[in-house]
Amino acid sequence: MKDIIYGPVSQDLERVKSKLCSFSPVGITDFPDSTKMLGQILGGGKLLRPLLVLHSGNFYNYRPEKLLFMATSAEMLHVATLVHDDAIDKADTRRGKPTINSIWGANKAIVLGDYLFACAAEFAAETESIRAVKLFAGALASISTGELRQSFSAFNMNQRFDQYIKRIIGKTASLFAMATETGAVLSDAPEESVHILKEYGMNLGIAFQIMDDVLDFIGTEQELGKPVASDLLQGTITLPSLKIIQQNPNDNPVSRLFEGVGNAADNITEAIALVKNTSILDECIQTALEYSWTACKNLDSLPESPSKESLFALADSMVKRRN
Amino acid sequence: MKDIIYGPVSQDLERVKSKLCSFSPVGITDFPDSTKMLGQILGGGKLLRPLLVLHSGNFYNYRPEKLLFMATSAEMLHVATLVHDDAIDKADTRRGKPTINSIWGANKAIVLGDYLFACAAEFAAETESIRAVKLFAGALASISTGELRQSFSAFNMNQRFDQYIKRIIGKTASLFAMATETGAVLSDAPEESVHILKEYGMNLGIAFQIMDDVLDFIGTEQELGKPVASDLLQGTITLPSLKIIQQNPNDNPVSRLFEGVGNAADNITEAIALVKNTSILDECIQTALEYSWTACKNLDSLPESPSKESLFALADSMVKRRN
Repeated sequence: MKDIIYGPVSQDLERVKSKLCSFSPVGITDFPDSTKMLGQILGGGKLLRPLLVLHSGNFYNYRPEKLLFMATSAEMLHVATLVHDDAIDKADTRRGKPTINSIWGANKAIVLGDYLFACAAEFAAETESIRAVKLFAGALASISTGELRQSFSAFNMNQRFDQYIKRIIGKTASLFAMATETGAVLSDAPEESVHILKEYGMNLGIAFQIMDDVLDFIGTEQELGKPVASDLLQGTITLPSLKIIQQNPNDNPVSRLFEGVGNAADNITEAIALVKNTSILDECIQTALEYSWTACKNLDSLPESPSKESLFALADSMVKRRN
Repeated sequence: MKDIIYGPVSQDLERVKSKLCSFSPVGITDFPDSTKMLGQILGGGKLLRPLLVLHSGNFYNYRPEKLLFMATSAEMLHVATLVHDDAIDKADTRRGKPTINSIWGANKAIVLGDYLFACAAEFAAETESIRAVKLFAGALASISTGELRQSFSAFNMNQRFDQYIKRIIGKTASLFAMATETGAVLSDAPEESVHILKEYGMNLGIAFQIMDDVLDFIGTEQELGKPVASDLLQGTITLPSLKIIQQNPNDNPVSRLFEGVGNAADNITEAIALVKNTSILDECIQTALEYSWTACKNLDSLPESPSKESLFALADSMVKRRN
C-alpha cells in the first residue's frame, strides 16, 4: 500500500526529506541550540504535504527543480504552524517527541515558528512563480484565520457542523489544497486540471482532519504521539464531540467538562467511551469517507499518470489511518 | 522638518495609512474581536518603513500601484513582529496603547501575528515581483534570526559591540534595508542605485535602533509609550548597558541586576543615572550619528529627486528623535 502511495515520486520525496533533515539555520549557527531545535522537528512525520505537491506536479510538465522547493516550503509551513500550535496548547509531546516549547520554552517556540515561516516563504519564492507565492501566502492566511476561529470558539458548545468544517478547512485543508494547487500550477497544468487537483487537496484535507479528530478519541497516546483527547482539554469541539453534544442535549460529558461540572478525567473517559461504543465513531468515519470520495470524484478526467493511482490510494488510506 | 521628511510622498503615505486603518480580516469578520484587534495595532506609529519604500521608489520610475502594496507589506510585517515581541516580553503597553496580549492573551497574539505575516506576504506578492518577495522573505528570516539571537543572549553579560550590531541588524535594520531595496527594485533602479538605497536603509536602521536603545534609558514612560528600561528588564543588553558594563567592569548595576544582587528597582535607577550623567549618552549618540552619516554617504550619486532631500532630513532626524 505504502509503495503505491509514494509511487513514482518516492525518490524526490526522499530528497525533500534530506533537505529538511540537513537544513541549517543561516546566520545563527553560532548558537548550537538553534540547530538542535530544527533537528527536533524537521524531516519527521509522514511528509504528506510534500507528497501532494510532487504527485500533483506529475500530470503535465514534471519539474523537480521547482516542485522540490514548493514541497519543502509546504512542509516547513506545516511545521511552523505545529510549533506555534504546541506553544499555544502548552503541549508536551508531538510525533512522540518533546515539543520545542517543552524543552526551550514558549518564547523560543514563537520565534522559531516565525523563522520557519520565513524559510517556507523563501522556498516558495525559489519557485520563481508569483502565483505559487500568492497561494502560499493565502494558505498561511487561511491557517491563521482558522486558528483564530478555533481560539474564539474554544469552550463554546453552540457550534454547528458547517462551522466545524469551516474551521478545519482553515486549519488543515487549505494547506493540502495549496500543496496540490501549486503542484499543478508549477507543472503548467491547464486551469481545469488545476481546479480538480485543488479540490482533491481540499477534500482530502477535510477527510484527513476528521480522521485526526476521530483518532484523538480512539487512538492510544503511543499511536498519537500526544495525549488522548487533547482537543477536548483545549476546549476545541471537533466532529465526535459535536455529535456527543447533539445526541445527548440534556446531559453529556463534554458540556460537563466545559462547565467544570464533575471530575474532568471522568468526563473525558466517558466522552471517549461514548465515541467508541455508540454509532458516533461510524458516523464520523462515514463523513470522512464521503469527503475522500469527493476528493477523487474528478481525478479520472486528469491525463494518465502513475501519480493518479497514488492519489486514489492516498484518499483510500485516509479513512484507514491509525496515526 | 516633518514636511521635508514626508515631502513628495506624503499623499501616498496617507493612502497606506488608510489602507491599514480600514484593513478588514477576510474570512473572520464574524468574530468582531478580530477586527478590534487589528484596529488596536494597524495604522498607528510613524509609518517609517512605508515612508522608506515610497521615497526609495521615487528616484526612477515611481510606480504607486506596486509601491503602495510593498509599503503596506513592510508595515504589516513590522506590526506582526511587534505583536509577537510583546507576547514574548509580556509587555502591557505599546505606542501608549494596551498590547494585544494584555487584552486578549498571549495565545491570540501568537495567532494574530501569524495572520499579519500572511497578509504582509500577500501584499508583497501583489507587487508581482519575485525579487521583492524574496527580499520580503529574507527580511522576515533576518528578523526572526535576530530575535532568536537576542533570546539566546538574554542575561549574558559577555557581549561585544559587534554582536550587538549583528543583533540589531537582524531585529531592525534588515527590515529598513528591505524597505529601501524593494522601493528601488520596484522602480527599476539600476543595480548600483539599488545598492546605495539598500545601504542607506541598513545604516539608517542601525542608527534608529541605537537611538531606540538610548531612549529606552533616557525617555519617560509617556514619551516611550512603554515602561522605561524595558530592555534591561528583559535581560537584553543594548549599547548603553554594554558601555555601563565595559566602563565599570568590577561593579555595575547591570551585572547586579542580572545576577539578582541588591534591589532590582535601585539597580535600574542607578543604570539610568549612569547613562544620563556620564559620557555614555554622548558616546551612544555619536555612534548613531556615524551610522546616519554612513547611510547618507552615497546618496549624492543618486539622480535628483525631491525624495533625496527627504532621505537626508530623515537621517538627520534619527539622532534627534525623542520617541
